[in-house]
Amino acid sequence: MKKIIGILGGMGPAATVDAMDKIIKNTPANCDQEHIPVIAVSFPDIPDRTASILAGGESPFNKMLAALRILEAAGAECIIMPCNTAHYWYDELKASTKIPFLNIVEVTCNKIVSEGINNVAILATTGTIKIGLYQDRLRKENVNFVVPDDIQQRIIMESILAYKSGDGEKAYQLIESVITQLKHVGVEHFIMGCTEIPLILSGCGDKKEYIDATGELVRKAVEWCYLSSD
Amino acid sequence: MKKIIGILGGMGPAATVDAMDKIIKNTPANCDQEHIPVIAVSFPDIPDRTASILAGGESPFNKMLAALRILEAAGAECIIMPCNTAHYWYDELKASTKIPFLNIVEVTCNKIVSEGINNVAILATTGTIKIGLYQDRLRKENVNFVVPDDIQQRIIMESILAYKSGDGEKAYQLIESVITQLKHVGVEHFIMGCTEIPLILSGCGDKKEYIDATGELVRKAVEWCYLSSD
Repeated sequence: MKKIIGILGGMGPAATVDAMDKIIKNTPANCDQEHIPVIAVSFPDIPDRTASILAGGESPFNKMLAALRILEAAGAECIIMPCNTAHYWYDELKASTKIPFLNIVEVTCNKIVSEGINNVAILATTGTIKIGLYQDRLRKENVNFVVPDDIQQRIIMESILAYKSGDGEKAYQLIESVITQLKHVGVEHFIMGCTEIPLILSGCGDKKEYIDATGELVRKAVEWCYLSSD
Repeated sequence: MKKIIGILGGMGPAATVDAMDKIIKNTPANCDQEHIPVIAVSFPDIPDRTASILAGGESPFNKMLAALRILEAAGAECIIMPCNTAHYWYDELKASTKIPFLNIVEVTCNKIVSEGINNVAILATTGTIKIGLYQDRLRKENVNFVVPDDIQQRIIMESILAYKSGDGEKAYQLIESVITQLKHVGVEHFIMGCTEIPLILSGCGDKKEYIDATGELVRKAVEWCYLSSD
């Protein structure tokens, strides 16, 4: 049997479904049995990550750790966490398990660097932006990047929350307005650095200007699976 | 926290993703935290159900039971199994656990009966047809149903296998030809009685002539969740 990918998910639940869907689409298979086994713990009641970072709301750490423990006990052999903002707690989570744990920011930045991508804007939650998850790494690699201004960032966050509340159309219109503005000031690429954004922009996601963090994470996990399985 | 739905999945993996997606779409929620927690064990290497029924291939039971045990240990509080053919082993699985375990055939037939649906064709794997999963129940309820003839059934099975091999377009064309034939002989409704079929017919699935077994199963699970949660 192929190695089991564990998904520490529910942040949000649709992002977990998107990651599972992308695992299937990235696996060459002619029948069910050739696909990769996945255990997904999708606990949407994990406290809001951005609220915890920005406003000192309840920390999501303990519930994320509980989900990780379930994945360990269930036999997961490699962990992915399809939520960018949750990676604020990545080091602490990774240190608490012996199972390989892929990092969504690292794999996404690796792609940007290896493909020589520049003039890239970071589309992410206000929490992810505030803690500089992407900025720190891109700065080190001398990648030119743009962080949306405060007004744009408020609109992006509103878009993400609209999607989470079930209003995909409003979510799309909000983020599209910011993307148009950013293109006008020379941005050529966009990091979909919140796992809701590929869903909001579904239909646009295959365009080369978008870098899908969920997609990169999944591709790396599938690759890990093939390299480490018997 | 809401009660946890456990998915005994991977049969096929895309059907598990579809069920998770439908749980989200059937849950009224304004933010992540209002969604239902789900643990999905998606083990696509569970032996092929139809091959086991028709040709005496390896039984999938032990691997399904192993997945069920993982769900129990992980804390699942209600089990769903988004694979119709797998319900050949439902009684045995249900008898081996204390957790409520919903039955996809039962909930689908309940809908047909309660809505007074008649002249319905069963679109399913050859395994599901052979063991009469739907026929037995519909006969008891005096519902007029049509079972595809041998040639049509071979085409339906080919369609399902094409989808599982990644060829959605071929899958659609094959099943569409049978659906057209069945409409010509007076069939008014179609049970999508294999969890790949709503995926093959995605885009058509909302039409009233289709009865989506996955959708019915999920609606029942969500309802269970609301009725039994604090």
